[in-house]
Amino acid sequence: MKLHTKEITIQTKNKFQIIDITAQIQSFISKNKIQKGIATIFTNHTTSAIIINENEPRLLQDIENNLEEIFPENKKYLHNIHDNNASSHLKSILMSPSQTIPIINNELNLGTWQRVMFVELDGPRQRAVNLSLIGE
Amino acid sequence: MKLHTKEITIQTKNKFQIIDITAQIQSFISKNKIQKGIATIFTNHTTSAIIINENEPRLLQDIENNLEEIFPENKKYLHNIHDNNASSHLKSILMSPSQTIPIINNELNLGTWQRVMFVELDGPRQRAVNLSLIGE
Amino acid sequence: MKLHTKEITIQTKNKFQIIDITAQIQSFISKNKIQKGIATIFTNHTTSAIIINENEPRLLQDIENNLEEIFPENKKYLHNIHDNNASSHLKSILMSPSQTIPIINNELNLGTWQRVMFVELDGPRQRAVNLSLIGE
Repeated sequence: MKLHTKEITIQTKNKFQIIDITAQIQSFISKNKIQKGIATIFTNHTTSAIIINENEPRLLQDIENNLEEIFPENKKYLHNIHDNNASSHLKSILMSPSQTIPIINNELNLGTWQRVMFVELDGPRQRAVNLSLIGE
Repeated sequence: MKLHTKEITIQTKNKFQIIDITAQIQSFISKNKIQKGIATIFTNHTTSAIIINENEPRLLQDIENNLEEIFPENKKYLHNIHDNNASSHLKSILMSPSQTIPIINNELNLGTWQRVMFVELDGPRQRAVNLSLIGE
Repeated sequence: MKLHTKEITIQTKNKFQIIDITAQIQSFISKNKIQKGIATIFTNHTTSAIIINENEPRLLQDIENNLEEIFPENKKYLHNIHDNNASSHLKSILMSPSQTIPIINNELNLGTWQRVMFVELDGPRQRAVNLSLIGE
């Protein structure tokens, strides 16, 4: 059993942005010749998330609009006295900072429509995402 | 340390359906004699999720009703121009496509009321769920 | 590759409470000298969750208030005929019972503001959280 870790850097451009990182994860798996195992994708930030869903532009806009309806930026939050981004923290808690995905035949075992995506909720910022592979 | 993977197939019958898959996961752990480790359960679909909660019929109905209140099927979504299931995608993002669970003494280390359940959000369909065990 | 598991016990004092367990996880990693790997944190209860976010008191209050707005305790739920805590179950499903975090240089690879926190949704109760480390 082998273990490989790598940090990837993402420069976001907008307050809200969804960035497909599937190719970068797949490339790290290929390079390390992991045939079988698991990949854990972990974002190091409290106003971001990792999701696995369809990368369809209108759906990504629906995600932005509907998260904003649940936790509007302009609503009154106690945390905003401290730092004006409570809405971003709350949205990230509805999603998750990490996802764990099977690796089979040297590939991320994703379904037809599944893509691994980084969700920026308080950009633009430079972000770090950690990839951890365990397998053989 | 050993690694075992298996794909299980689930045939759903309704648009929304919650299916308990705990016994199938436990059976795969028993068969492979993993005493200690972790099990990752991963659904390969963007309109489904894996949850761990109580398998109580009225609670399952509450889950369906309350997810529908948050993201009603009949609301206007941009993605619906493309494929009429944005509500299903959004519900899946509120939950998660994967869960990772400890294995102790050759058993999934679940609490008294915890069951691992597949959530169909856009059925009926045939679905694939991947089980990955890492342990010894 | 080594594997270590430990159960930690948490005594909660309120109906809703967020408890930072980062130090306990870090201490278990240090003691077992895991330099590199992953840590899976798993709560054994269907009315609790594990989140990774900023431990800022006003934000924790925002989390409590906003989850309560989404799934109010006093709303009518079918499960409440059985056990008066459907709101707690539903809130837990919006979050997750487990999180998997990279370990690098004998430390949980958390970002500056990230803390691992147990969320009690139906306390006060005594709770069990399982820590599983896989690494070398």
